[in-house]
Amino acid sequence: MKATDFDAWAQQQLVDVERALDAWVPADVPAGLGEAMRYGVLDGGKRLRPLLVLAACQAVNGLGAAAMRAAVAVELIHAYSLVHDDMPCMDNDVLRRGKPTVHVKFGQAQAMLAGDAMQALAFEVLTPMANERDAARQPPQQAEVPAALQARLCALLARAAGHAGMAGGQAIDLASIGQALDEAALRDMHRRKTGALLQASVQMGAACGDCGAVAWQALAGYGATIGLAFQVVDDILDVTQASETLGKTAGRDQHHNKPTYVSLLGLAAARDHAEALRQQAHAALARSGLGDAASVLAVLADKVVERES
Amino acid sequence: MKATDFDAWAQQQLVDVERALDAWVPADVPAGLGEAMRYGVLDGGKRLRPLLVLAACQAVNGLGAAAMRAAVAVELIHAYSLVHDDMPCMDNDVLRRGKPTVHVKFGQAQAMLAGDAMQALAFEVLTPMANERDAARQPPQQAEVPAALQARLCALLARAAGHAGMAGGQAIDLASIGQALDEAALRDMHRRKTGALLQASVQMGAACGDCGAVAWQALAGYGATIGLAFQVVDDILDVTQASETLGKTAGRDQHHNKPTYVSLLGLAAARDHAEALRQQAHAALARSGLGDAASVLAVLADKVVERES
Repeated sequence: MKATDFDAWAQQQLVDVERALDAWVPADVPAGLGEAMRYGVLDGGKRLRPLLVLAACQAVNGLGAAAMRAAVAVELIHAYSLVHDDMPCMDNDVLRRGKPTVHVKFGQAQAMLAGDAMQALAFEVLTPMANERDAARQPPQQAEVPAALQARLCALLARAAGHAGMAGGQAIDLASIGQALDEAALRDMHRRKTGALLQASVQMGAACGDCGAVAWQALAGYGATIGLAFQVVDDILDVTQASETLGKTAGRDQHHNKPTYVSLLGLAAARDHAEALRQQAHAALARSGLGDAASVLAVLADKVVERES
Repeated sequence: MKATDFDAWAQQQLVDVERALDAWVPADVPAGLGEAMRYGVLDGGKRLRPLLVLAACQAVNGLGAAAMRAAVAVELIHAYSLVHDDMPCMDNDVLRRGKPTVHVKFGQAQAMLAGDAMQALAFEVLTPMANERDAARQPPQQAEVPAALQARLCALLARAAGHAGMAGGQAIDLASIGQALDEAALRDMHRRKTGALLQASVQMGAACGDCGAVAWQALAGYGATIGLAFQVVDDILDVTQASETLGKTAGRDQHHNKPTYVSLLGLAAARDHAEALRQQAHAALARSGLGDAASVLAVLADKVVERES
């Protein structure tokens, strides 16, 4: 796939994702909650998880309307985790996507509630209801999603977000501060903390189509691999980039005395590791048998490793 | 229904609910997260919401296995909301169900993560996956739940938990501290904050069976009415009962300068209001056309109004 073709595809998808997020995250919630939710998720972020959902759906020729719901839902889960993660009792970060964090702008209580409501909203988005009283809040272009697919998407997302996935990884992360983790323990932490949701993004997209067992397993492997690559690159960028480029506080891993791939392997070996994972991701796509349909996923693997913020 | 019949029914249901919660909330999660989750939900609480789910399911002769999942899920949402609500940035309560609150025992970061993971777990419980790698964690007695019902239960629960329901009500509650609300504004706050989840409990139970439109609407009205009655009684108990009886800090509404039915109407009128709501709940059940099948729900309405803690 040519870089220009990918860019055109991604640009169109991002327009659609932003429009769907804007339509789904309500402005008209009392007491400022809607404002805090919208602040936490709109106009920011690379939207990597939505792009993975949509690219995986395209790779299996899946149901686009379902994938767009999944894309919105997974981004809501990601965004809520950042809102909670930034709070004083967790990482105590004041800068995110180049703006003050949600708790700095709206207060801690509202930030906690906004995160909680964003998680619930993710599952609302996945389960459209007919005759809903608040139908006015739903984007008009939403097509019907089969109930079995709704349930499957909820199942994948809940497991990736919960104790076995993201929340569990964050608990390990908390406990690891100041600890010396070996590479296996570090990998386990990141497999849960960031990897599970990235992998689930690919799986949710694949679930929107009729995907055979071979392709399903290959795509799950691809998702796990880029999930790990994403974190290795995150650790590299934390020490090599300035805060302005990252849009968040640079050097915070070291500041928080957190174990990272760079602190464990050194910078050069961490870069080699990221490159090896990129190759593994491509190999997984080759195994999938999906051919050219998976070419967007291939470019996304490159983007994950080559990104500079 | 005789009081002894109800007590026998409730006792058996509570045994089953505790067993299901114990089976679903994992102990083996790393870094203490599972421990904090279990502490937050096991061995405590009246389990009113699970009893409403199971009674409503029984009223419509619904699928018991699905209702038990719904009962566990709604209790997880309720329990997570208490964990977050007790935190210092919210109500800053140190006592809950007669024990130190989760953040007092495990720290604020773990309490926030445990609440987050409990919300995700609620949607895991509602969406069983075949061939799940962690099948060992699932209770063995779980029967299959149709996908359409899984999706419907997720839809009802997510909407009751989110910005239009519980989280939205909590945001209004936060903003109302020190404010003079009129009765309509107070009712709107409680309809969201506690009413939505109690109503959803009834609706989730009803969704487990083949329930006609008349019965569905009557049960939804019953749920909304006891939701409101529950809060009126809560406000009464906050001023009439000691902390030991409540298992949580008494007088905290006044302490936090929160508007309540007692502060708005006075104690005697608040009691009259609770009694009127009890009558409304019974009238809704009479309208349902479900006859004796709804007798457990009738007793539950009485219990909500007559409770002393």
